[in-house]
Amino acid sequence: MIKTTIVGMGLSGEVLLKILLGHPRVGHIELVSEHIQKANAQRILESFKKSGSGAKSLSLGTAEDAAVMGSGDEIVFFCKPNGFSMREIPKYLAAEKKVIDIAGDFRLKSTKDFKQWYGMPHARPKFLKKAVYGLCEMNREKIRRAHLVANPGCYPTGILLALAPLLKQKLVDVSSLIADSYSGISGAGKSPNEKNLFLNAYGNIKAYSVAGAHRHVPEIEQEASVLCGKKVSLCFTPHLAPLDHGIFTTLYLTPKKKMTEANLGALYEEMYANEPFVKIVSVDECDLHSVQHTNDCLIAPTIDKRTGKFIVLSAIDNLVKGAAGQAVQNMNLMLGFQETTGLV
Amino acid sequence: MIKTTIVGMGLSGEVLLKILLGHPRVGHIELVSEHIQKANAQRILESFKKSGSGAKSLSLGTAEDAAVMGSGDEIVFFCKPNGFSMREIPKYLAAEKKVIDIAGDFRLKSTKDFKQWYGMPHARPKFLKKAVYGLCEMNREKIRRAHLVANPGCYPTGILLALAPLLKQKLVDVSSLIADSYSGISGAGKSPNEKNLFLNAYGNIKAYSVAGAHRHVPEIEQEASVLCGKKVSLCFTPHLAPLDHGIFTTLYLTPKKKMTEANLGALYEEMYANEPFVKIVSVDECDLHSVQHTNDCLIAPTIDKRTGKFIVLSAIDNLVKGAAGQAVQNMNLMLGFQETTGLV
Amino acid sequence: MIKTTIVGMGLSGEVLLKILLGHPRVGHIELVSEHIQKANAQRILESFKKSGSGAKSLSLGTAEDAAVMGSGDEIVFFCKPNGFSMREIPKYLAAEKKVIDIAGDFRLKSTKDFKQWYGMPHARPKFLKKAVYGLCEMNREKIRRAHLVANPGCYPTGILLALAPLLKQKLVDVSSLIADSYSGISGAGKSPNEKNLFLNAYGNIKAYSVAGAHRHVPEIEQEASVLCGKKVSLCFTPHLAPLDHGIFTTLYLTPKKKMTEANLGALYEEMYANEPFVKIVSVDECDLHSVQHTNDCLIAPTIDKRTGKFIVLSAIDNLVKGAAGQAVQNMNLMLGFQETTGLV
Amino acid sequence: MIKTTIVGMGLSGEVLLKILLGHPRVGHIELVSEHIQKANAQRILESFKKSGSGAKSLSLGTAEDAAVMGSGDEIVFFCKPNGFSMREIPKYLAAEKKVIDIAGDFRLKSTKDFKQWYGMPHARPKFLKKAVYGLCEMNREKIRRAHLVANPGCYPTGILLALAPLLKQKLVDVSSLIADSYSGISGAGKSPNEKNLFLNAYGNIKAYSVAGAHRHVPEIEQEASVLCGKKVSLCFTPHLAPLDHGIFTTLYLTPKKKMTEANLGALYEEMYANEPFVKIVSVDECDLHSVQHTNDCLIAPTIDKRTGKFIVLSAIDNLVKGAAGQAVQNMNLMLGFQETTGLV
Repeated sequence: MIKTTIVGMGLSGEVLLKILLGHPRVGHIELVSEHIQKANAQRILESFKKSGSGAKSLSLGTAEDAAVMGSGDEIVFFCKPNGFSMREIPKYLAAEKKVIDIAGDFRLKSTKDFKQWYGMPHARPKFLKKAVYGLCEMNREKIRRAHLVANPGCYPTGILLALAPLLKQKLVDVSSLIADSYSGISGAGKSPNEKNLFLNAYGNIKAYSVAGAHRHVPEIEQEASVLCGKKVSLCFTPHLAPLDHGIFTTLYLTPKKKMTEANLGALYEEMYANEPFVKIVSVDECDLHSVQHTNDCLIAPTIDKRTGKFIVLSAIDNLVKGAAGQAVQNMNLMLGFQETTGLV
Repeated sequence: MIKTTIVGMGLSGEVLLKILLGHPRVGHIELVSEHIQKANAQRILESFKKSGSGAKSLSLGTAEDAAVMGSGDEIVFFCKPNGFSMREIPKYLAAEKKVIDIAGDFRLKSTKDFKQWYGMPHARPKFLKKAVYGLCEMNREKIRRAHLVANPGCYPTGILLALAPLLKQKLVDVSSLIADSYSGISGAGKSPNEKNLFLNAYGNIKAYSVAGAHRHVPEIEQEASVLCGKKVSLCFTPHLAPLDHGIFTTLYLTPKKKMTEANLGALYEEMYANEPFVKIVSVDECDLHSVQHTNDCLIAPTIDKRTGKFIVLSAIDNLVKGAAGQAVQNMNLMLGFQETTGLV
Repeated sequence: MIKTTIVGMGLSGEVLLKILLGHPRVGHIELVSEHIQKANAQRILESFKKSGSGAKSLSLGTAEDAAVMGSGDEIVFFCKPNGFSMREIPKYLAAEKKVIDIAGDFRLKSTKDFKQWYGMPHARPKFLKKAVYGLCEMNREKIRRAHLVANPGCYPTGILLALAPLLKQKLVDVSSLIADSYSGISGAGKSPNEKNLFLNAYGNIKAYSVAGAHRHVPEIEQEASVLCGKKVSLCFTPHLAPLDHGIFTTLYLTPKKKMTEANLGALYEEMYANEPFVKIVSVDECDLHSVQHTNDCLIAPTIDKRTGKFIVLSAIDNLVKGAAGQAVQNMNLMLGFQETTGLV
Repeated sequence: MIKTTIVGMGLSGEVLLKILLGHPRVGHIELVSEHIQKANAQRILESFKKSGSGAKSLSLGTAEDAAVMGSGDEIVFFCKPNGFSMREIPKYLAAEKKVIDIAGDFRLKSTKDFKQWYGMPHARPKFLKKAVYGLCEMNREKIRRAHLVANPGCYPTGILLALAPLLKQKLVDVSSLIADSYSGISGAGKSPNEKNLFLNAYGNIKAYSVAGAHRHVPEIEQEASVLCGKKVSLCFTPHLAPLDHGIFTTLYLTPKKKMTEANLGALYEEMYANEPFVKIVSVDECDLHSVQHTNDCLIAPTIDKRTGKFIVLSAIDNLVKGAAGQAVQNMNLMLGFQETTGLV
């Protein structure tokens, strides 16, 4: 039974806590947050204990708490806003903790890109190289050996998994990939803002960060370039839809050569045959209901005969496979557990 | 004060009734429907009378009712499922009525296309040529003289208005236009089906008729081809979103030559400068809340610098500008009223 | 054509603006708000002009603007948070304006009650007596002669209209009236708070101000007491439901003597026979869809045979009949217009 | 590891399957349904296997399948529409199976009541006495020994648990208990009907079966009478709210003698101190989000000082504590497992 720490209790931290409470290899969870409502955390723990799944303990602290660093934890999750973890994580690594960062501080490899997209210089640029991009299906072996994992962004997770087979096989023109995504309102966080008020979101649809203005664009381009060995350009439009959890993406890709729908399907089936959390489905089976509250990514590839475009649909839960679930999948790899432990 | 008839009381018929009840030039409305709940219709009428906008009468009948044909109506709206109006409308035209068909029976010019997409031979093919495609902003003069107007489909309305400036100026590659649309659940009709049950739609997103399988594809291609004088191919993905009214479309287009965002905006502003129902807005102003229960179409054109793509957003209410509102706009033109009468 | 002023552009102010823009007797609207987005207001106005309903003008100012007082307006609406209008309104009355206050500053007759429930002493207690409680169906004649109308709260509107026939006829025990109400999220305002965040409200139900803690309790008790001539005690539980507009109330009342359901229905029908905005319906017809965006109040009275209780359902739109619509109904009375003008 | 059978795959059956797949003492699940989509069932099973919680098997059959009866199952759940199980269950009992009926066939003790409320004579009246009403918190010992458990209805579960402390202590007037409940749309089933269409339910609130017309009224009265030893009369109004899972109930009760809020709270705390699934909370903590997808029932008792009424709020998930979760809680008791096994 291991000890874990969660630093930060935003939406990702809450879902992470819930998953770790049900994880059979986790014995202790230290929550570090100024904002945690103790009553709330305690209630979750009680629910868990009640279910009889084994002894587990929970403690609460703040970032300054000396106990955090000396607690013998094997793994620490950072679920803080961007710009926090890059200053804190090096201390944890020095203390020989393994760290998973759910924020964006260690995802981009280029300090120039980081400064441009996150609006601040990187506090510890040399750690960028040490960080492994935690898309398990692509970087499994590196993750097993990593001490610092940059957990992928929510949009990049669904998009990169849906692109990977075509990128690896160099089957599509990578100068203008198109990704059109709709996210539930949890994508807008839980601090009140224009986007996440009920009256603004309910019954509405709106695009935001249109025309390459979203931080996930350079992240997707960077990792997509790694997959195909060429510089990739992405046209990405995120939208908000009136629901809580989930991201639905429709990809439009220009093939480099013709291919039958059967061959396209076989390519995806084959690449993901042994992946526990990636399911290749028909376009009719691909929806958000099928993935909400699970770590699954559904992918449905097809071909538009009129224009020859490849269309690939993907669906994930932005807070599970797109954040906390994937973080636990990364933890399982880093600590040598079975990859699916504690995840549904 | 004119007399009007509405044949069919599905969702479009209901919205049409509401608009006509508030229309200052409409004196009498004949509802022809087997399914109309008289109590319901009567209540709507009472609401209207109460508002003091003038005398108006409402009567109820069935399609077989002889009164329909002899009532001296100037205009008849068909709001029935596809395949009904093509058999009935010729009788009305012979009786010198003007007709607006909200179904798809007279939209496609090719009988071959009609058969392929609607799954039945056209009952009166020679009337296809007489029908004018009722996209007011494009065919205003023809509509003024028309006796039979085929009211555009909901998706085509928002997509064609957003495409028209670029098509007319031949500024984009028309071999692979991409339109990604999300519709509220009213797009799935009011007869119970898999798509429009609360538990299936609530909190969910799903694509349907993917890869060129939707009937609106040939309709859009036909009219887009008219606008640019070339054969157009469209890659179109409709999705359902958990809300009632509205269609949000994101278009991805490949420019034939470079253009600044300012020039792109100016092109749209200029073409629609005098249009009462088309508003060119910024991407941040384009959402469904702004168009629900109005006859407006909002359009926001922009350019993605990473890939050079033109991105054009459009938003309409599928039952107003995408159906009943546009039908009244057509009626206003056909009867010589001010085009905006009775519409908001 | 009259001149009007709206002070404050919260949710009620927005709906009021929309109604006044469509009101055939209103020629000019002065908006006084620090928060009004001019672009937004301008767009609404354009929409209206387009509809051809006649010349209308709109101007924008701030509360300090001298123009407000000298503009020759006949009527001024206050749509500000509680505590603002009690300081400002006396100036307007002194300048011979007629005033309708949509806040709660002038609803309670007792300064002691005001202090207790609004948490501050009343700034101008002597004006409390001059204010007429603007429930049109009860106080029509007084409203016609009033210079200051206190527009009723949203919950009190639906509840008092549903109680009035029984109170006036002294048919129920008034020592423990029970009202159980569910409001859409617009009831929680548009400033971000715990209640009106999407993730908190979506898919949720929660009671608030339980056990007599809501400010509308003394307001309902005061007016109910006027109707029956006895001190009334109310047990009221407001809840939030995941929708935008509307209040649904279920009343549980103990009859003082037995009555048939037919007689109960007849009592309601008779009392409201000539009311344009109150509709007596069956329990199956009473829902929020029927009243949203209208000034109607639906009421469905029935009897529970097992316990003998009278059950009365009522449904209104909290922002229309429960706020801005009722304010315009009051304006129509105060200015001698037909009561229904500009309302649906 | 035990073998189980689920007969019927409506909404309750689906949730039951999910719970049993995660239950550590269940080795095999036989699904008996004409409507089960095998692909769907298979996918759920795969999800489970993946999670590494142990070997489990799933098989599919139809009601006629001889395998069902001979399969050596220890327990059979009936999740069919009312009227089915009363004919089938006796055969299973004769074959020495233990049976839990999630329908209403065995809840009412009186055949006369059954006929009146279910509109048909009871097929096997003598089994009514053998059936134990499966409200675990009230009938725990009887359930442990039972062969046939009638799983309580969804509304009765939340209402009876909230009433029990007051009924047992005879603290309230039982001649007119008032329960006002709001259910999510899953309460209207998954077969298409007027109530569960998206466009009818979205953004709406409606009461139904008003004034004692709901089948759960006699069920609640029967069990409430058992608790207090007197005939109880209930005034119950169920409503539909636009969300998927959950029932929120507000009870209004007349005390027989005065009591402080502290004493009232202590009474509830004490009675439920050792109950794993009943939580006494403050009125601010009682909402649907806290109970959805859990077997918890939250209860918040308070007192309205103006009228002296006791107000008790309760919240459950109608498909978990109100159906499938409570059924598993019953199974755990019947088979001697820890009561909370497999439940959260």
